[in-house]
Amino acid sequence: MKKAKPELTLAKIGGNIIDDPIALQQALTAFSQLKGAKILVHGGGKEASKIAEALNLETQMVDGRRITDQPMLDVVVMTYAGLINKRIVAQLSALECPAFGFSGADGNLIQSEKRTVQDIDFGFVGDIRHINTPQLLSLLSTKAVPVFCAITHDGKGLLLNTNADTIAAELGIALSDAYSVKIIYCFEKQGVLINTNDESSLIPILTTSKYRDLLAIGAIYSGMIPKLDNCFSALTKGVDRVIIGNLSTLENQNAICTIIQL
Amino acid sequence: MKKAKPELTLAKIGGNIIDDPIALQQALTAFSQLKGAKILVHGGGKEASKIAEALNLETQMVDGRRITDQPMLDVVVMTYAGLINKRIVAQLSALECPAFGFSGADGNLIQSEKRTVQDIDFGFVGDIRHINTPQLLSLLSTKAVPVFCAITHDGKGLLLNTNADTIAAELGIALSDAYSVKIIYCFEKQGVLINTNDESSLIPILTTSKYRDLLAIGAIYSGMIPKLDNCFSALTKGVDRVIIGNLSTLENQNAICTIIQL
Repeated sequence: MKKAKPELTLAKIGGNIIDDPIALQQALTAFSQLKGAKILVHGGGKEASKIAEALNLETQMVDGRRITDQPMLDVVVMTYAGLINKRIVAQLSALECPAFGFSGADGNLIQSEKRTVQDIDFGFVGDIRHINTPQLLSLLSTKAVPVFCAITHDGKGLLLNTNADTIAAELGIALSDAYSVKIIYCFEKQGVLINTNDESSLIPILTTSKYRDLLAIGAIYSGMIPKLDNCFSALTKGVDRVIIGNLSTLENQNAICTIIQL
Repeated sequence: MKKAKPELTLAKIGGNIIDDPIALQQALTAFSQLKGAKILVHGGGKEASKIAEALNLETQMVDGRRITDQPMLDVVVMTYAGLINKRIVAQLSALECPAFGFSGADGNLIQSEKRTVQDIDFGFVGDIRHINTPQLLSLLSTKAVPVFCAITHDGKGLLLNTNADTIAAELGIALSDAYSVKIIYCFEKQGVLINTNDESSLIPILTTSKYRDLLAIGAIYSGMIPKLDNCFSALTKGVDRVIIGNLSTLENQNAICTIIQL
């Protein structure tokens, strides 16, 4: 009989939590109390845009996605890997959680490739190509709690901006041979909603076929589609459990949320 | 007979190297080729002041030392732990060096205490109180190469600005039970000079008594005194070898430099 794999929880906290000090403290307190191996992945929030604005840099957006030119890359690296990551690490450390803040460049943990220009030049944006799983397993074996910001590197010295949801999914996939992985995508809503303004329209279980049906009738908010694609990709490639919900999913296993299922 | 301790090199690179991309690349190439266990500590350079200026923050200096108020702390954390640290880590990673960028908050590696106000309120400046030696040894045992920026934390969630020379000295002292530690303080001069504008006035060996004599006649440039105090403190508390020199000390064991001796 195969030995049961140890459990690992991968929590991703989004921008709205990062931007709200009280919500952030609540999320980190709950995260610090999770049992077993764990990893935190955090998005950027509004701070990068605020700093870019203060520096008189223009934030260029195409279809709701940030274009990362060189000055904006510097701002994003400073904000995500510096200010936000180290604040989170210091707060977790105060909660007796042995947190280590990482970008993908640290220990070559997440290598990506600069996105090639097709219709839109997104600039210094990286698509993940390789996770350094042995190094990550070695860190986890020392009880370290990795805290990843949304910065990766190309292995040739270039830092790149990478979607935090995708980082969470790819880390989960890479670790799924060694661990039974649960990913919690934590944001401001209770889960996936049919009507984004109505929490009662929550979908408790979203299966592949239901997702396909909802996509076909245009019932999925466009901003949710990349997140959900990440969820299904993670489950397809070995992650055991993926849920989407608000802060209470970190605090309570039975919290209302959306469970993603193949 | 006591077993010989393994060797560890602790290199500290200063602001002038950080500010010059060619010198930085040269320093990192040399550092990546050093044999045995190693740690890099880096200062901040002028980037923090430039960013503070762009953000219209006033850099307050008293006796040549920066006053770190809250907005300046944010800038320093962003710049040191974000921009500079991650650039260095990405460059080292490209040189096949398994670098991990850390602040003192990461893994609670360096805990400090906010300096109490006496004559001058330096603001969010931390004096080192504790190095998490077991955690650091555990990282080094996995062949990780820690890269420290000059940010520590108080263990209660507060990040603090800390002198990089002192960080190098304290790390060296903490590791001196397990390793034979050599510290290389690397800056723009060939070593300690009697006349800061004349490289031929270099002191090849600076002993405690010679240092005392030179201090007595005011022959040591005031900016060098804290650095030298750190050097002597490190040697007194277990570090094997301390040298001060320029980039070539990283490249060549016989480079011209100042050797500090008790």
